[in-house]
Amino acid sequence: MEQAISMQDIAQAAERIRPYIKKTPLVRAEKLEALFGGAEIWLKLENFQITGSFKLRGVANKVCTLTEEELKRGVTAASSGNHAQAVSYMAALRGAHAAIVMPENAPQAKVDGARGFGAEVILHGFTGEDRDQKCEELIARYGYSLIHSHTDPAVIAGHATAATEALEQMEGKVDAVVIPCGAGSLTSGAARAVKGLNPEIATIAVEPAAVPRFTQSLAAGHPVTVDMGQTIADGLRVSKAESINYELIRDNVDTLLTIEENWIEQAVREMAFRAKVVAEPSGCVGIAAALAGKIDTSAGKRLIFLITGGNVDGEFYSRLLRG
Amino acid sequence: MEQAISMQDIAQAAERIRPYIKKTPLVRAEKLEALFGGAEIWLKLENFQITGSFKLRGVANKVCTLTEEELKRGVTAASSGNHAQAVSYMAALRGAHAAIVMPENAPQAKVDGARGFGAEVILHGFTGEDRDQKCEELIARYGYSLIHSHTDPAVIAGHATAATEALEQMEGKVDAVVIPCGAGSLTSGAARAVKGLNPEIATIAVEPAAVPRFTQSLAAGHPVTVDMGQTIADGLRVSKAESINYELIRDNVDTLLTIEENWIEQAVREMAFRAKVVAEPSGCVGIAAALAGKIDTSAGKRLIFLITGGNVDGEFYSRLLRG
Repeated sequence: MEQAISMQDIAQAAERIRPYIKKTPLVRAEKLEALFGGAEIWLKLENFQITGSFKLRGVANKVCTLTEEELKRGVTAASSGNHAQAVSYMAALRGAHAAIVMPENAPQAKVDGARGFGAEVILHGFTGEDRDQKCEELIARYGYSLIHSHTDPAVIAGHATAATEALEQMEGKVDAVVIPCGAGSLTSGAARAVKGLNPEIATIAVEPAAVPRFTQSLAAGHPVTVDMGQTIADGLRVSKAESINYELIRDNVDTLLTIEENWIEQAVREMAFRAKVVAEPSGCVGIAAALAGKIDTSAGKRLIFLITGGNVDGEFYSRLLRG
Repeated sequence: MEQAISMQDIAQAAERIRPYIKKTPLVRAEKLEALFGGAEIWLKLENFQITGSFKLRGVANKVCTLTEEELKRGVTAASSGNHAQAVSYMAALRGAHAAIVMPENAPQAKVDGARGFGAEVILHGFTGEDRDQKCEELIARYGYSLIHSHTDPAVIAGHATAATEALEQMEGKVDAVVIPCGAGSLTSGAARAVKGLNPEIATIAVEPAAVPRFTQSLAAGHPVTVDMGQTIADGLRVSKAESINYELIRDNVDTLLTIEENWIEQAVREMAFRAKVVAEPSGCVGIAAALAGKIDTSAGKRLIFLITGGNVDGEFYSRLLRG
């Protein structure tokens, strides 16, 4: 069956978003390797992306598909944070009004990030459903275009470029690409891209054990909604698996892992003190899974970890580093 | 007059050390730019160097000049930290014994770093003079080769490659290169390299106001020793200016600035939360000087900051991030 995203969609996205995004570094992390079994550990640093996370890729691609008329009316998005910053930034670049709906408990850094780019921030409710409803209301009233954070094929294709770019940057073979998994837009896009480029590269996705929506969906054979558990990986707090992401993950992810909170906390520290990188908890669940021994890091392997973001609350982050 | 380091020395060093060092990323830091006057801010991330600092460059170059016989006898170095890790790492790679003399109050992370590579660590005294004396003693007894951290021309030429590499990576014009200044080996090498490549690029060096050895030396017209003030920039705690560094700095640095502690502390935080980079205080005195308004960051300028290291003590660093 044809997949929702084609390799051509991804190639077109890469071309389209080039003026708006940054080619982020792919770096080898020798000091991290000391913790593992001899594998080469490479980090694709999307926390260095202009807005501090990979989210800009998909948003840039989506905004590029809007007409002048649509841009004039403005855009809206529901987001727990990084998607919001990306939408605000791109809207500002294109002169469009952005109305961002965030949960009432959004980290201040993320609220400030969106407002800093000139967006209107509307704090509303706590769940994804609350925010989606508010967006619908705004769309009906103002004619905004919705930039959906994870179900829009243009967003997914844009996110996929993080993986294609990493594979272009890497010289020689790659054994696996490890992808943090939340609502699943990055995982679906990146895994699709990796498998489309080279089916022999393993795709490994990691979601918090506290919110295992895709693990349970795969077990059930259809997309499900799980209870919302507590996780410090705030970017991955999404309880419902959507069909488009479920199908792309089912068809392109070789291994889907869950990871517990203590490993995520340790991963944040190892990223800081060994890799010298400020990663948000959501951004290093892949490293967390490797620390927990859930990923094969034996000698001879070469692994790429997508480090998806670095937008942390200062107070919370410094406490996390203390351990 | 001929300078102590030639452009050919630097080119040879770059060639010689290629198998042992990492080409570190040069990244633009858009979120940092929001703090300044419109200039492009580029970071050369030597904290991503294999041993966590630029020191590996000079050490690798020096070790490559030793004979098999000398390597067999072993090497010694006096260091407050990052130089030690670099010597330990390179010695281990070449199968040479390394005896590292560190101050008794060296941060544990730096002691562990050297020991982790298999070096013998000798904790001795508190001042640079104490450590130099101990090295002389070891050399007399065991025939070790000294890897001096800042007066050896081979070390200086190796360090200079951080600057040549950054200029190679940068497309288009560069207005200034900003260099942290401690004992002066990086500053002398990097400023020499920049001026040798393009005299129109401004060279700006920054030393802690607490230990302004080169500012006072330039004022005096000869190398002097200053009182050792308190600074969190532990890699820049050197009271004595040596002749070779003094002369290279005098001849190649356009502007030498001093920076106060509060700005260094703020720079560490901005590097973490905006640039998403873990930099040690010594590594971001350049950003500190820009924050203090001492560097021209007006629109149209393109500045490269050498971020020299990221080896921090976890407890101290997390406290620093809290502010």
